[in-house]
Amino acid sequence: MADQIAEDSPVLYEQEGGVAILTLNNPDRRNVLSTLVLETLQDYLARFQADPDVRAVVLRSSGPVFSSGHDLNEMVDRDHDSYEAVFTLCTQVMEAIRLLPKPVIAQVQGLATAAGCQLVATCDLAVAGESARFATPGVQIGLFCTTPGVALARAVNTKKAMEMLLTGIPISAADAQDAGLVNRVVPDEELEENVLELARHIAGASSQTLSIGKPAFYRQIELDRPAAYELAQAVMVDNLEKEDAQEGISAFLQKRPPQWKY
Amino acid sequence: MADQIAEDSPVLYEQEGGVAILTLNNPDRRNVLSTLVLETLQDYLARFQADPDVRAVVLRSSGPVFSSGHDLNEMVDRDHDSYEAVFTLCTQVMEAIRLLPKPVIAQVQGLATAAGCQLVATCDLAVAGESARFATPGVQIGLFCTTPGVALARAVNTKKAMEMLLTGIPISAADAQDAGLVNRVVPDEELEENVLELARHIAGASSQTLSIGKPAFYRQIELDRPAAYELAQAVMVDNLEKEDAQEGISAFLQKRPPQWKY
Amino acid sequence: MADQIAEDSPVLYEQEGGVAILTLNNPDRRNVLSTLVLETLQDYLARFQADPDVRAVVLRSSGPVFSSGHDLNEMVDRDHDSYEAVFTLCTQVMEAIRLLPKPVIAQVQGLATAAGCQLVATCDLAVAGESARFATPGVQIGLFCTTPGVALARAVNTKKAMEMLLTGIPISAADAQDAGLVNRVVPDEELEENVLELARHIAGASSQTLSIGKPAFYRQIELDRPAAYELAQAVMVDNLEKEDAQEGISAFLQKRPPQWKY
Repeated sequence: MADQIAEDSPVLYEQEGGVAILTLNNPDRRNVLSTLVLETLQDYLARFQADPDVRAVVLRSSGPVFSSGHDLNEMVDRDHDSYEAVFTLCTQVMEAIRLLPKPVIAQVQGLATAAGCQLVATCDLAVAGESARFATPGVQIGLFCTTPGVALARAVNTKKAMEMLLTGIPISAADAQDAGLVNRVVPDEELEENVLELARHIAGASSQTLSIGKPAFYRQIELDRPAAYELAQAVMVDNLEKEDAQEGISAFLQKRPPQWKY
Repeated sequence: MADQIAEDSPVLYEQEGGVAILTLNNPDRRNVLSTLVLETLQDYLARFQADPDVRAVVLRSSGPVFSSGHDLNEMVDRDHDSYEAVFTLCTQVMEAIRLLPKPVIAQVQGLATAAGCQLVATCDLAVAGESARFATPGVQIGLFCTTPGVALARAVNTKKAMEMLLTGIPISAADAQDAGLVNRVVPDEELEENVLELARHIAGASSQTLSIGKPAFYRQIELDRPAAYELAQAVMVDNLEKEDAQEGISAFLQKRPPQWKY
Repeated sequence: MADQIAEDSPVLYEQEGGVAILTLNNPDRRNVLSTLVLETLQDYLARFQADPDVRAVVLRSSGPVFSSGHDLNEMVDRDHDSYEAVFTLCTQVMEAIRLLPKPVIAQVQGLATAAGCQLVATCDLAVAGESARFATPGVQIGLFCTTPGVALARAVNTKKAMEMLLTGIPISAADAQDAGLVNRVVPDEELEENVLELARHIAGASSQTLSIGKPAFYRQIELDRPAAYELAQAVMVDNLEKEDAQEGISAFLQKRPPQWKY
């Protein structure tokens, strides 16, 4: 993969079996989420939505910094509309990850800050190398990480989110795991393989089933419990009547491997 | 208790002091939550609601599996209405546990999967033996655990819930405790006694107080913070004017044990 | 500070640089949150709101008990309106901490129970000494900690909150940190210095930035995710156009320390 990472593009795309891999590829600029990078991510996510060969997505980056967040050059001496456009675009990318009916896994090898930390919080799952760190340091430059805080507060408990937002001090990978910001911490040299193994495992499921389950999960957690159950029951019945569910359950009862249609 | 567990009933009922004990008793079928089992649980919960001798409830099971969730035989080759009926009934049982104005403790000795894991997530408290494990593996048979996810996402953080739902891989008792799915992990051989001790401790409180506090808690967590405080204040004043609160506070100020009326 | 703590006042006030320090100073009565104490806290918080010299607040107490919560003498043999007045006032103080556009840090040296535990849960951040403990023991005196539960359930996971509320059993400082009730646990003898260091760090930020970020955080966590992003984007743009953000970002890009106007 080394040669691909060397290519001159802000985001690299590879496909390994059912797993699409996006690599932020601007290590010299700390994998900044410039308008160009955000638009490129948006394009890829839109493409993956319709591509039946993409069953799971890995989002990673090259170099010692996972992503440092917004491009600060886009944050000074611009007009109101320009500022609005950047944050609107950034939210669109975050929401596109959540709304993509396919799992997205963040592979975090280094420092993830501000909107870079938001990106990790937004992905469905995240795996970190031992040396990864996470921070929302906007407060130190006068720009409180309010939008990253939306994703952060939905991943970790309130006091932990507040500590990160009010102090800007980075937390370790181990702390991030305890807090719920990442699912697993592995030795740095095993990170890539560990994430690919996880992605392949998930990509082995029916993409029909995943496309029902992931969106329903994020919808129900926004509802009160009775409304969540009402939604979830309807989704379960719908899921159950689909080909792959009937195949999967029949296969289980017959003690044979399932043959997914999707 | 061994002889009672040997009885031919899907759910056994015992009473120890103020503690009602329900035991799922179909280990050969992995304590499946069939329609019959769910209806039996529903009947017991309705009975406990009105029974002043029941001050706390323990929900446990016999054999190496706590519960494997729905009966998959009820999930194939049935019509739409049958599927709807199963999920409606299951939600009713889960909600009956939440709405019962008496604490319900899950005692988990083995593997709790799918709706079995949902049952653990739904109980007010849960204690697990060291060898217990927890999974939402529906994705592996084409039926995403969307309804279990409603309870799971309200017990553990979002990324942990997503990991369980997207991978179906079981987590250990220790991981379940870290995640908030269970309150305590104890050696397997101490599980029963530990749970009974906890249940007796809770049953020693005024049942009037518990019947005010538990429902109010679950109502307030669904509200935004100001609305939650408005509700909680009204509940506190109501609670304070009840006999057992006046008795309890007076006893405390007089340094004597309280004599509960309820 | 020893001489000040000896003063005859229910709440002491000191100022160290940009940090205001409030000390509950009634150790003989376990730093009870009587009407007098609550009103005094309310007055100080209102004063801090308008005082540009207060950039962060520390809330601590003297003696072996951080606070035992409400004054139980105000909970017996009074009329309905008196009870309502106490809980209304207590909620007002808790909300004043949340709504104060300046960070508030709880410094917990001993046992924090009932509304005393609620106070810790309510502060933006909390640091505990190793020997601190936390409980919501109202259930044991017939008065379920329903209002403390509002803050508790927004700090820790549901089963942990329920365990504390249903049993009344204290948890250790380490457990409180695992649960998210406190941010850090430090040796008792390092508690004061650790908190002051944290407060000074936070007070070094632009108070303009903090006054935007803290209230926005608590507003957005009450919203569903899309509404939260809508709010957060507008706040980010507003924040970005402020003097201190433009100064902070420019300073960062020019690799010099920022000079805050606020």
